[in-house]
Amino acid sequence: MRVEIWSDIACPWCYIGKARFEKGLAAFAHRDEIEVVHRSFELDPHLAKGDTAPVIDMVAKKYGRTLDEARAMEEHVASNARAEGLAYRTEGRDHGNTFDIHRLLHLARASGRQDELLDLAYRANFADERSVFDPEVLVGLAVEAGLDADEARAVLTDDSAYADEVRADEREAAALGANAVPFFVIDRRYGVSGGQPAEVFTQALEQAWQGRTLVPVGTTDAAACDTDGACEVPQA
Amino acid sequence: MRVEIWSDIACPWCYIGKARFEKGLAAFAHRDEIEVVHRSFELDPHLAKGDTAPVIDMVAKKYGRTLDEARAMEEHVASNARAEGLAYRTEGRDHGNTFDIHRLLHLARASGRQDELLDLAYRANFADERSVFDPEVLVGLAVEAGLDADEARAVLTDDSAYADEVRADEREAAALGANAVPFFVIDRRYGVSGGQPAEVFTQALEQAWQGRTLVPVGTTDAAACDTDGACEVPQA
Repeated sequence: MRVEIWSDIACPWCYIGKARFEKGLAAFAHRDEIEVVHRSFELDPHLAKGDTAPVIDMVAKKYGRTLDEARAMEEHVASNARAEGLAYRTEGRDHGNTFDIHRLLHLARASGRQDELLDLAYRANFADERSVFDPEVLVGLAVEAGLDADEARAVLTDDSAYADEVRADEREAAALGANAVPFFVIDRRYGVSGGQPAEVFTQALEQAWQGRTLVPVGTTDAAACDTDGACEVPQA
Repeated sequence: MRVEIWSDIACPWCYIGKARFEKGLAAFAHRDEIEVVHRSFELDPHLAKGDTAPVIDMVAKKYGRTLDEARAMEEHVASNARAEGLAYRTEGRDHGNTFDIHRLLHLARASGRQDELLDLAYRANFADERSVFDPEVLVGLAVEAGLDADEARAVLTDDSAYADEVRADEREAAALGANAVPFFVIDRRYGVSGGQPAEVFTQALEQAWQGRTLVPVGTTDAAACDTDGACEVPQA
């Protein structure tokens, strides 16, 4: 089965939700049969590149709260993260446009390093003092994930590289009815919205596993070749 | 939506079925939203590498027919191929183990050239006088598909390269109940078996398109971040 996860680096519930999903997956008997694909979703696609602001300021403005109230809200998120064993800094983190990170995640997907890069980007953004809005930090993360520095830099300096792939992911999210992340889709059949408890993911995987019978379309006797090498040839 | 197509180069109905599927896809309004992935399926996984035999001899033996009868059967397949505009040679073609071709198709997939390589391999096998059981022919096809010759050769000389991927595809086919190819699966929800008429594929795509609503699992109010950048923080 295939699980597609729409998320954004700038989304703390995606960071937390990924850890919960992975716990849920670890408890699923057929976990080795699961392919995970990460899909792009920008929380703030309209922010200009390089237009960053401290998260606390952004939260205060967005919710019409004082800075202290915004800090308390961030502390609440942080406590959820820490409960999952994830480090989380509530100060010194910026919010901004994540288009370039998504393009880089598509490069990483092409060489099977997407999950590694996503984990490193989450850690840089939420746990460490590294800005994921700095291109050279992104190149460093790409290298840590096993990618080639020059290749990563080439993608970052060419705004069109993997841009179509990011947009296609976002169109697909919209087509599937998702306007918030994290958003988990199992075999395009079951959807899980938000950073649900690990048990919900295990349950969704089990439900999908039991229900994965195909609906046949067309006749059942069309010409085909079977496993002993014989090809059914009607009227031969 | 995603269409997965299990097939084998040695399977004439896969060659024909691919052309019919592509006609059916061309008539589907949302064809630009379709991702096609080719999956491995070996008709004769137990044949030793290099153990090839003329197709006509194989067909005669398999069905207990004379060589002339086997030729007539091949002519019947050929007439179906030609009706789809596909060249088809009924003589001089070998049957054999296709494991290496499948491994190479997985290499091609990693760089987005899988469909190109599959078309070239079908043409070599069914239309041209080129043996797909000759490693140097395979390297030539890989280069024509836009792959690097050394990379292709490295995969062909290392029997373990992409072997797990081929086996995983085959396990998935078995899990989905497929014992013959071509086998088409739309979003792991709808299945089309065999080289059906183009209209069946269009119909299956339309049916899948209309039915692609997700079954939600879990609560609907779990913490998430939405498109205006706001993160719902329960009890904040």
